[in-house]
Amino acid sequence: MTQTPLLDRVTLPSDLKGMTDAELSSLADELRAEVVSAVATTGGHLGSSLGVVEMTVALHAVFDTPRDKIIWDVGHQCYPHKVLTGRRDRMTTLRQEGGISGFTKRSESEYDPFGAAHSSTSISAALGFTVARDMGEPTGDAVAVIGDGSISAGMAYEALNNAGHEGRRMFVILNDNEMSIAPPVGAMSKYLSSLYASPMGQFHHMAEGFEAALPGPLRDHARRARQLVTGAVGGQGTVFEELGFQYIGPIDGHDMGQLLQVLRSTRTWATGPVLIHACTVKGKGYAPAENSADKYHGVSKFDVESGTQNKSRPNAPSYTKVFGQALAKLADSDPKIVGITAAMPSGTGMDIFEKAHPKRMFDVGIAEQHGVTFAAGLAAGGLKPFCAIYSTFLQRGYDQIVHDVALQNLPVRFAIDRAGLVGADGATHAGAFDVGYLSALPNMVVMAASDEAELVHMVATAAAYQDGPIAFRYPRGEGNGVEMPKVGEVLEIGKGRVLKNGSDIALLSFGAHLAETEKAAEMIEAQGLSVTIADARFAKPLDMSLIRNLAKSHRALVTVEQGSQGGFGAMVLHALAGEGLLDGDLAIRTMTLPDRFIDQAAPDAMYADAGLTATDIAATALQAAGIKIGEAAE
Amino acid sequence: MTQTPLLDRVTLPSDLKGMTDAELSSLADELRAEVVSAVATTGGHLGSSLGVVEMTVALHAVFDTPRDKIIWDVGHQCYPHKVLTGRRDRMTTLRQEGGISGFTKRSESEYDPFGAAHSSTSISAALGFTVARDMGEPTGDAVAVIGDGSISAGMAYEALNNAGHEGRRMFVILNDNEMSIAPPVGAMSKYLSSLYASPMGQFHHMAEGFEAALPGPLRDHARRARQLVTGAVGGQGTVFEELGFQYIGPIDGHDMGQLLQVLRSTRTWATGPVLIHACTVKGKGYAPAENSADKYHGVSKFDVESGTQNKSRPNAPSYTKVFGQALAKLADSDPKIVGITAAMPSGTGMDIFEKAHPKRMFDVGIAEQHGVTFAAGLAAGGLKPFCAIYSTFLQRGYDQIVHDVALQNLPVRFAIDRAGLVGADGATHAGAFDVGYLSALPNMVVMAASDEAELVHMVATAAAYQDGPIAFRYPRGEGNGVEMPKVGEVLEIGKGRVLKNGSDIALLSFGAHLAETEKAAEMIEAQGLSVTIADARFAKPLDMSLIRNLAKSHRALVTVEQGSQGGFGAMVLHALAGEGLLDGDLAIRTMTLPDRFIDQAAPDAMYADAGLTATDIAATALQAAGIKIGEAAE
Repeated sequence: MTQTPLLDRVTLPSDLKGMTDAELSSLADELRAEVVSAVATTGGHLGSSLGVVEMTVALHAVFDTPRDKIIWDVGHQCYPHKVLTGRRDRMTTLRQEGGISGFTKRSESEYDPFGAAHSSTSISAALGFTVARDMGEPTGDAVAVIGDGSISAGMAYEALNNAGHEGRRMFVILNDNEMSIAPPVGAMSKYLSSLYASPMGQFHHMAEGFEAALPGPLRDHARRARQLVTGAVGGQGTVFEELGFQYIGPIDGHDMGQLLQVLRSTRTWATGPVLIHACTVKGKGYAPAENSADKYHGVSKFDVESGTQNKSRPNAPSYTKVFGQALAKLADSDPKIVGITAAMPSGTGMDIFEKAHPKRMFDVGIAEQHGVTFAAGLAAGGLKPFCAIYSTFLQRGYDQIVHDVALQNLPVRFAIDRAGLVGADGATHAGAFDVGYLSALPNMVVMAASDEAELVHMVATAAAYQDGPIAFRYPRGEGNGVEMPKVGEVLEIGKGRVLKNGSDIALLSFGAHLAETEKAAEMIEAQGLSVTIADARFAKPLDMSLIRNLAKSHRALVTVEQGSQGGFGAMVLHALAGEGLLDGDLAIRTMTLPDRFIDQAAPDAMYADAGLTATDIAATALQAAGIKIGEAAE
Repeated sequence: MTQTPLLDRVTLPSDLKGMTDAELSSLADELRAEVVSAVATTGGHLGSSLGVVEMTVALHAVFDTPRDKIIWDVGHQCYPHKVLTGRRDRMTTLRQEGGISGFTKRSESEYDPFGAAHSSTSISAALGFTVARDMGEPTGDAVAVIGDGSISAGMAYEALNNAGHEGRRMFVILNDNEMSIAPPVGAMSKYLSSLYASPMGQFHHMAEGFEAALPGPLRDHARRARQLVTGAVGGQGTVFEELGFQYIGPIDGHDMGQLLQVLRSTRTWATGPVLIHACTVKGKGYAPAENSADKYHGVSKFDVESGTQNKSRPNAPSYTKVFGQALAKLADSDPKIVGITAAMPSGTGMDIFEKAHPKRMFDVGIAEQHGVTFAAGLAAGGLKPFCAIYSTFLQRGYDQIVHDVALQNLPVRFAIDRAGLVGADGATHAGAFDVGYLSALPNMVVMAASDEAELVHMVATAAAYQDGPIAFRYPRGEGNGVEMPKVGEVLEIGKGRVLKNGSDIALLSFGAHLAETEKAAEMIEAQGLSVTIADARFAKPLDMSLIRNLAKSHRALVTVEQGSQGGFGAMVLHALAGEGLLDGDLAIRTMTLPDRFIDQAAPDAMYADAGLTATDIAATALQAAGIKIGEAAE
């Protein structure tokens, strides 16, 4: 175990105030080792956290948290921040059931003033705190720390634009490591690179006002650098300056001296919005991370010495991989198929598609709004776009799905990964709402895969379907290990399938909870009742002939889904009510996620927390049928 | 009637090809008069259309539509385009029931390659068509025409960023009239102004490559202007150039000669993405519009000679005004109340609030994503933000509502105007989905006002509620003329009200369809049945004690709402199913908007189209109760 004499003196950020700059620098080294050793036991977002170790120390040393608000964009780089803000002893519970979150979280600490897990929200939130301060609320300065990938999202641009207009004192730190989860794309990324592609390396574009506040030698250096690069003191500014920010940088985000000087000066001097551009290295200071292609963005538990990750062997291919492979294969014989991802090529399996068809995959960056409408344009232009976005992130493109896709009935295919509860990423990443928000839309077809073979069929179905938009959802993680079809079968739109015919109770599953539903059926049958099991396949259009039969020939009907209320079950209820099929004595129950957010745990544990185990399903069905467990069947 | 000899020669854009530049210039004059005279009889978005008359003629003269794709952002400036593309004889049906749409619409014309009505989608769509062309689809060049307000939205920035990165030949025309619906806000707006704030006025920043393609004298002028302004030929570029676009302009968007020259040169020469910055005047060429503060953005029918609009006297104050006044009044005594609008100050009534509390209203521009999270930040900072966004536009901030507001349980108040069907703006502006997409979210409180007095209570309730997010929806247009309360009453959360007690049939209304529901009750009573009428007030949390009573003590229960399936009715069904209250012989029906988009007409006609008249409600209730109309009661 490494010695951590300085870190041992830190209970809260106030303990940093008495330290010398040299001590802060050593503290950062200790903190880095501490984070590596903690994440080695839990897994998590290591690379991003290692990139901001010095920045975290410098921010807490210079600013006065929790009165000042440090808002970490995305939040996954907050591990060093958690160590310094009273959560050091809980770091080994990171991302575990009952443990601390892998992101910032308001309910966890007063040092987390604004939780995050989706990207690009920090500047908006910081502006909110800033206005609150200016209106007399007891809050200090707001500091948003945002990566170069996140700042390229439209939402961040909207916030910069608005903050520049407001002109209030606030701080944005651009943490530029030239790499979000995937290497960042887009013209803004190229532009940021150009800002520090000069021979002088750093300080080449430091603002005049800031320069004046610097100590003499540094000031001269900065001014010279600036003049060399821009050609004139009064030359045109950066994009950020054009948006109304004072721009400072680029600076070395791992140089504690530079960080402290810049933050102290800026804090003293700033009257309006300031953007500090700090260059960092993802995975900094831990060789296995620095040397890895993904910079240990997200890691499993690993051995600190060697960096070897303890990856468990999967028992079945992941849904993500099955999707990527199925799409790549279909595209071999269909040149109109194109793929779209929003900065998640490997997370969505689009990297597999890209490998096979490099010119037909479009990574639009963190830009779900644009991505969806771009897909609509591709469809209007005659192509077959597959837009692969996680359920939780697709929320970012909702208006575009309504207005550009559904309303125009354009055949955009939505491949919705991470549907349902997702495990360690917790509530912020849950894919809970897509079935409801998509099924409400006219023209939309909504499918869910009950296993990985079904997913292959649904990819084929989506490719063949040209009459309008179509979506298919599937969960995070491994499939069930079922036998895989050689080619996907084109499913009949709006047709479910019956897996087993019974007479007392009907269980109607939509999506990947089918296996759990089958277990529930066994439990019910153990009570002497006869069970029908059906896989709806479609939430829209509903298989009304199937559902009518289930409603008419069973005394109880239970729907099961991995999603919130207002989804599949609601569609079934609404349709049955409309046909008068709820008028009689059918007992119906719609099992969904409960009306609360579910904290991180293993997915099975999260579904247990949600009341969606086989036992829960069986108990609900039996209760509906009027049977108490243990009671003999009629 | 003005003579229109040139316009009479135009059936389709191909008829422009044989015209001389002088004829095209005259054609624009005729077209302007034609648009004024048509809109005088229908009302509509006049100002924007008048601003692009010359541009429309020039685009159709230079580009080869429909093979080339002109994509009008927002689409409300498309009236001259409609006249030139075969719809001249239908212009008097504009925005009328059964008539042509006030926006571009794919199903209406092959010259409308991508419909729009929400802003900032055009560049994304244009990039889609561009990629389709490059992959061999039979489509030509894509041209996005986007206003200065629309281009400041995050989505447009995402698209520019991606298009700059792709580097493909495509065209963006920035139609800069320094005014979207409201004067544009934000730093980008200031920046655009600075681009042409030089003594030379125009051509001051024309790209070198473009200059070379110009005829000699114009080229010299352009180069001189550019050098004067930027100080050097090779100086730093505009934001657009930094994003990878070739920037041309600013040019005079009403000078046909300049437009034709620039478009022809650019079309010949462009190999990558090009942005042409054209300055226009909203309302151009029609004095009453030019002289009006809102430039006749949206007008009623008017007298062409005088410009006097034929505004009908309202019988009751509009919901919008009631909201604005109620909020302004509450804020008099509550300094924590702040207001947020996304470029819709007058549309949302926030202008009334701003007048009373100028420093407490924040217009974030067309930036719903930022606006919602900014509101979350304000709430986290201790203020009471009211975020007033139309139902249809709130879809743009959905992920922010989920991730930044609901998940953190922050007390953001959502004032949702234009809920339900909205009349002449048609399907694109329908507020159909909010009840479903909000009620699915844990922590969210969802209310709907059944009349304008109820709205006052709900504003007061939202102001008083600090336990989490709360939303209230209300329709477009006038209230019912009910007596107004002096002060709003704070409603009990999750409590509905019974307007009338009966015993056979229960009608449970959520929101502004209560009056129609009361009419339905009279019709049912005329059949000799006893009717209960309840106003749910809350879709979430539901008033379960009220709903249980309705379910248990009536043979039929009908819910009524101005929204899509998956909304209030679905919430009621899910809750009743969960309690086993659907197991018995209650007949339940959930009346919602049908599963299709409803075209423009008067709101009443749209609701008739939707099957939501009093007659429809009565018939549904009677059928549910097993009574045919005319049959005697039991």
